[in-house]
Amino acid sequence: CLLLQGATAILFAVFVRYNPETDAALWHWGNHSHADNEFYFRYPSFQDVHAMVFVGFGFLMAFLQRYGFGSVGFTFLLAAFALQWSTLVQGFLHSMHGGRIRVGVQSMVNADFCAAAVLISFGAVLGRTGPAQLLLMALLETVLFGINEFVLLSLLGVKDAGGSMTIHTFGAYFGLVLSRVLYRPQLEKSKHRQGSIYHSDLFAMIGTIFLWVFWPSFNSAPTVLGDGQHRTALNTYYSLTASTLGTFALSALVGERGRLDMVHIQNAALAGGVVVGTAGEMMLTPFGALAAGFLAGTVSTLGYKFFTPILEAKFKVQDTCGVHNLHGMPGVLGALLGVLVAGLATHEAYGEGLDSVFPLVAAGRRTTMSQAIYQLFGLLVTLTFASVGGGLGGLLLKLPFLGSPADSQCYEDQVYWEVPGEQEEEAQGPLRAEEPDSRA
Amino acid sequence: CLLLQGATAILFAVFVRYNPETDAALWHWGNHSHADNEFYFRYPSFQDVHAMVFVGFGFLMAFLQRYGFGSVGFTFLLAAFALQWSTLVQGFLHSMHGGRIRVGVQSMVNADFCAAAVLISFGAVLGRTGPAQLLLMALLETVLFGINEFVLLSLLGVKDAGGSMTIHTFGAYFGLVLSRVLYRPQLEKSKHRQGSIYHSDLFAMIGTIFLWVFWPSFNSAPTVLGDGQHRTALNTYYSLTASTLGTFALSALVGERGRLDMVHIQNAALAGGVVVGTAGEMMLTPFGALAAGFLAGTVSTLGYKFFTPILEAKFKVQDTCGVHNLHGMPGVLGALLGVLVAGLATHEAYGEGLDSVFPLVAAGRRTTMSQAIYQLFGLLVTLTFASVGGGLGGLLLKLPFLGSPADSQCYEDQVYWEVPGEQEEEAQGPLRAEEPDSRA
Amino acid sequence: CLLLQGATAILFAVFVRYNPETDAALWHWGNHSHADNEFYFRYPSFQDVHAMVFVGFGFLMAFLQRYGFGSVGFTFLLAAFALQWSTLVQGFLHSMHGGRIRVGVQSMVNADFCAAAVLISFGAVLGRTGPAQLLLMALLETVLFGINEFVLLSLLGVKDAGGSMTIHTFGAYFGLVLSRVLYRPQLEKSKHRQGSIYHSDLFAMIGTIFLWVFWPSFNSAPTVLGDGQHRTALNTYYSLTASTLGTFALSALVGERGRLDMVHIQNAALAGGVVVGTAGEMMLTPFGALAAGFLAGTVSTLGYKFFTPILEAKFKVQDTCGVHNLHGMPGVLGALLGVLVAGLATHEAYGEGLDSVFPLVAAGRRTTMSQAIYQLFGLLVTLTFASVGGGLGGLLLKLPFLGSPADSQCYEDQVYWEVPGEQEEEAQGPLRAEEPDSRA
Repeated sequence: CLLLQGATAILFAVFVRYNPETDAALWHWGNHSHADNEFYFRYPSFQDVHAMVFVGFGFLMAFLQRYGFGSVGFTFLLAAFALQWSTLVQGFLHSMHGGRIRVGVQSMVNADFCAAAVLISFGAVLGRTGPAQLLLMALLETVLFGINEFVLLSLLGVKDAGGSMTIHTFGAYFGLVLSRVLYRPQLEKSKHRQGSIYHSDLFAMIGTIFLWVFWPSFNSAPTVLGDGQHRTALNTYYSLTASTLGTFALSALVGERGRLDMVHIQNAALAGGVVVGTAGEMMLTPFGALAAGFLAGTVSTLGYKFFTPILEAKFKVQDTCGVHNLHGMPGVLGALLGVLVAGLATHEAYGEGLDSVFPLVAAGRRTTMSQAIYQLFGLLVTLTFASVGGGLGGLLLKLPFLGSPADSQCYEDQVYWEVPGEQEEEAQGPLRAEEPDSRA
Repeated sequence: CLLLQGATAILFAVFVRYNPETDAALWHWGNHSHADNEFYFRYPSFQDVHAMVFVGFGFLMAFLQRYGFGSVGFTFLLAAFALQWSTLVQGFLHSMHGGRIRVGVQSMVNADFCAAAVLISFGAVLGRTGPAQLLLMALLETVLFGINEFVLLSLLGVKDAGGSMTIHTFGAYFGLVLSRVLYRPQLEKSKHRQGSIYHSDLFAMIGTIFLWVFWPSFNSAPTVLGDGQHRTALNTYYSLTASTLGTFALSALVGERGRLDMVHIQNAALAGGVVVGTAGEMMLTPFGALAAGFLAGTVSTLGYKFFTPILEAKFKVQDTCGVHNLHGMPGVLGALLGVLVAGLATHEAYGEGLDSVFPLVAAGRRTTMSQAIYQLFGLLVTLTFASVGGGLGGLLLKLPFLGSPADSQCYEDQVYWEVPGEQEEEAQGPLRAEEPDSRA
Repeated sequence: CLLLQGATAILFAVFVRYNPETDAALWHWGNHSHADNEFYFRYPSFQDVHAMVFVGFGFLMAFLQRYGFGSVGFTFLLAAFALQWSTLVQGFLHSMHGGRIRVGVQSMVNADFCAAAVLISFGAVLGRTGPAQLLLMALLETVLFGINEFVLLSLLGVKDAGGSMTIHTFGAYFGLVLSRVLYRPQLEKSKHRQGSIYHSDLFAMIGTIFLWVFWPSFNSAPTVLGDGQHRTALNTYYSLTASTLGTFALSALVGERGRLDMVHIQNAALAGGVVVGTAGEMMLTPFGALAAGFLAGTVSTLGYKFFTPILEAKFKVQDTCGVHNLHGMPGVLGALLGVLVAGLATHEAYGEGLDSVFPLVAAGRRTTMSQAIYQLFGLLVTLTFASVGGGLGGLLLKLPFLGSPADSQCYEDQVYWEVPGEQEEEAQGPLRAEEPDSRA
């Protein structure tokens, strides 16, 4: 960790500079009013994204009864690391000017997006990996995330503002393939700690609701200013309401005696934000957003109920947070929705706005159909990068000196954290007396 | 729920379209700069309102020891449903253009406001109603909310930006009358679950503080841009500080041995936001905001201490969250404050700004006195709509197939939720048996 | 409390008026567009600051096992009081125009800053003081904060946008000296309540992450618009990532068997925000921000491990939250960093922007070296004000009628709050025994 920070700092010293909007010497008020400064149109969204990534993902994963410190703490560590490192990676790929990386509010948004992908992968292996493993995973994933995003957005001209492909599909399948390589057949030793308790579920709901309320800002943060940003926020908002209703309905339908399951509500209700990550910027129509969100919530809930057990039993993929249901399937659905909406785009529906949504189509260099095919190709590229990268990452993480927790110590904070046991003993006494057994 | 979502989706398909600021074909950059786009002046406030409604109301109601899932979960369900449905209702009433409802950031704010009213009513019957009942309540209330708001703002020309009348008074009395109709005389069977526990009170404080910090954005979100929005935020800010101080002072005065009561702090401290919902936009002066907030905090605290027991014993109105104290009385006070401040308005105090605050007065079509009378009339209309609607709603909710919980199962999550019981028993089982000792 | 509120209200009535941007009669749309209204460039940051102060500080201090109500509740009380009172104090010093204090979004930001300083001091004496003592402390500290800030910013021309000196150094040493005067030698009687429990640590992490994500807005809220605000946010963002990585690394290094300590993560990870409070506005460079943040995180973690015990044993300073490590040392470091960066400033690096960052240097009235000396002098003035004020405050707080808690009752909510003990016993004791029934 110290070495990593040192190396990053040196790279920052050599390469990273303020961009013209953040540099006192480059920004000239004489020619501008405040209202020309893109900063003011991006910063409120950035802050929402930042809060959503750290509070949302951190607490969403805090549902485990004995892994709250790890969930929130390692989220904090990984995200902070990913922000620095992806500034470098994305800077090298995207924004080198005169041999320097120029940073500003847009690079901050992009770095937070990369952190989100890393946290999604973290969700797949939550509780079964140590901090050194996680940092190595973040290092590798940040590089691959940057390359994949560069290939899609810059080389292939694919549209993916909210990251159905680049963030959700990539993060989920990277984590799932990695989890497959790290498969632990003896995990039932830690089974009793794999569930939630009453209060840990409430902490997780803090994360859920943070993700839910700030998702419109997440999807719209990097779009073109103006109608694009407005439309993306609106589509995301409606899609999330529909995935929430769909999740409640399906959860009651498949639950025992009509009871709702907190796991579904905490996760599947958010699938509406994932599914419009690509198409939210396009002329999806409010009805399209509702339908997509409802479908995503439904598929996600059914995934938790029926597919996650199969995934573990048949495919030997352990998925602590169910990222396949929340990010994997809805991400792929979102990419396909993007293919569809791009293929159906017409000059009438977009008018002058075609230039900002599909610039290559507006410039006459592509038809809408070929744009759709590029979108589909982008999904395949993403799946390839994620699978190969996840496999590679899994092999790396098996290196013995990285300190993986024992099978009987998974989902347990005491391995890596000073847990306030003594005080708790005094205060809550009897609990501890029996604990050595359950922890042995 | 599925049927409702289907019906809503069809109505969206037929009627809902992007407004000119969100539509790629209608928005023309040629004629505009970003700074002409109202979106950028409204969106940060919208996000605050959105966070406040979902996090704030959800966690504020999580104070019950065994109803945290229901409080947060049903808030989530009801609010998501209300957002969709009120888009339709308010759209039909307010913003039909060429047979289409046009949606954008303002309709999102309005929908969140309607969700707030529904959640206030939910607070009155919290723990004593099932999800099917609640959805039916939300359906009915959304329609009546829309009609009442339309009558007040559009037909009567009443000013009520932050909704002292349309949101708080309406939501509270709708819920209270509904609760009266659903009165349960045998509720002492669930009495032992009606209180809080230590950690549930802390979760509720998350809600309280969210509501508190984002209330300036709530009251100012729909006002005219510029000085109106600025002034409303400022008045709300000062009013809330005063209601907080008033609440602490009164709570210590009426408490046993000067002890503070968490119920007062969680709720009455917020009354300052309610009381300036109407007058916050007007030239209330900072002193006026302080005085109003202090009065509201005081009245609300006294209400919790002395009036809530009478309400239940004499009037047979059960009020789980004390919405009468937080929203009912301060809402009526806020409406009356609006009458007063409107009646005292002068051309000198408002100058050119009179046109944006009281357009009918500025146009010479009303005197300030007649505006004040219209404000008062608006309060009476709201109380009528709320009472009749709440009564009607109560009768509907008594329909037997809606699945109301038994008297002995109120305030209990297990009726509707899979509660992580086994794990809890394992982990915390032994703890409970000895608890009386460690606390003695 | 009532008397204070009454006195404040009268002062508001006499002195406080809307500023031209909030006053209907003073604001003229004819000459302005929305984009000329500074409100829209400041308000999103203000809301972030407001959320950070109330949620962040309140929950950060909720780590104590039996003082959650006091931490969150008294934060609420003190901050609300400080907002009102510092509007008056700062108004008298800074913004009197025609005998009136003019308020608007900038005065709201400034009042929140003063509340932050008061909450830092509260952190030093958390759990060992009663509400009357705390209100008196807030009253005194608000006055001294205002005077100190006025001397630094207005008389000495010192730059300190994010308040390394005026907020963090001042608040920390005021609180620590006050704590020294109130030293309790018999405190081991309350030792068993001085630690955290599992869930209280998670509540504290809510505070930590809120402070972390919104700190860029905090430091940049009062800077000049444009590149200054953008650069400050960016520097703070990078500094915080580095302090987080440094804290994790050091915490594992100094921990038993490499275990991480929640106290370090909750606190030291935030030191990066404190350390760039002065220099964040300057041309610190992204590398400079990383290095400063890393240093601050390291020093702060080592402070918790090694210096806090010495502070209590040798210097008789009890410091509940470790404000010396989070605010004291990083604040002084931040002030010194400001001295360094100001001294190294060149006309080439700042270009035209020199005028907004160092106006006196740009006007030729100071050299960068003399600006650096003024910065250093500002630190000494702050330390003097804080120490003398804290000493005076400690003597005042010893007045017997203020109701200090007994040594055996420190860190205990039951002294000042109705704690839901009875209900808990009733509800959870028997509940568990019977649970199998109610679940059958």
